[in-house]
Amino acid sequence: MRILGIDPGLRCTGYGCLDLVPGSSRPSLVEAGVFRIDARLPLPSRLTNLHSDLDATIDDLVPDFIVVESLFAKYQRAQTAILMGHARGVILLAAGARSIEVIDYTATEVKKAVAGNGHANKLQVQEAVMRHLDLLERPEPHDVSDAIAVALCASWRVGQCSASPSASSLPEAG
Amino acid sequence: MRILGIDPGLRCTGYGCLDLVPGSSRPSLVEAGVFRIDARLPLPSRLTNLHSDLDATIDDLVPDFIVVESLFAKYQRAQTAILMGHARGVILLAAGARSIEVIDYTATEVKKAVAGNGHANKLQVQEAVMRHLDLLERPEPHDVSDAIAVALCASWRVGQCSASPSASSLPEAG
Repeated sequence: MRILGIDPGLRCTGYGCLDLVPGSSRPSLVEAGVFRIDARLPLPSRLTNLHSDLDATIDDLVPDFIVVESLFAKYQRAQTAILMGHARGVILLAAGARSIEVIDYTATEVKKAVAGNGHANKLQVQEAVMRHLDLLERPEPHDVSDAIAVALCASWRVGQCSASPSASSLPEAG
Repeated sequence: MRILGIDPGLRCTGYGCLDLVPGSSRPSLVEAGVFRIDARLPLPSRLTNLHSDLDATIDDLVPDFIVVESLFAKYQRAQTAILMGHARGVILLAAGARSIEVIDYTATEVKKAVAGNGHANKLQVQEAVMRHLDLLERPEPHDVSDAIAVALCASWRVGQCSASPSASSLPEAG
């Protein structure tokens, strides 16, 4: 089973793809990276570039599930969250057009499941991702480790892998 | 010149298409309607249906400009605005994929330009749309009149038509 985690952004969208191998106690990293988008372009062009990159990657990796963080906004950051909603809409469209099931978790759920602390910082998430996947290098930039983290979170839920310290406490996907 | 106004929604997206004829003092209504989306479907399927309807309509009408309201959120409605951002992202993608220029205005700008009052209610916007386009019937539902209103607002700016009571005071498009 293959899971593609995506960390949406309008300048840099991270992705991380994991395979769950039957009989193995932990998922393995297939591929991870970022789609960089020229921030000087108007929004429709940025979304078109993101969609094009996503299409190519999804068609290449053929995931069974796509996982994206939910968006919640405090008052001060509502406008940013609305803009992120545009990118997230394009990601969900790429999944929906292929009938790939989408799973979402809140950032707190992901951090708690992966790093054991719902308020873990970016560095702690990177280190947790390294540890869970036996990686020799830190996944950079943060957009990549965040994407892998959200895929890891789903892998423990969907694949019932045993590598998660807190998989049993994961809430229902939204 | 042809302008397609869109009022985004995840249950009902309105659209209204106007032609600006050289020598005519006012735009003419080409077509208007709604895309209805089954609210019981998961979000990726709803966005896929919206995108499919949009694609067909844009390819049929071949507009020169697409106009969509900007999204702003007060704290209480931030989550709704984020969800609308998903739909708006899909609309901007449909425009961007065809290199059609997107214009946006705030709801207040549209209401002020069309109905003369930035706080006009839905009924006042409907009546203003009827008056400006010499329509015999009220455009229903509100999603349709709102979509026509946003197209009207752009028509006065882009086409320098003379039918707007306040076209000269329109602010720069975002």
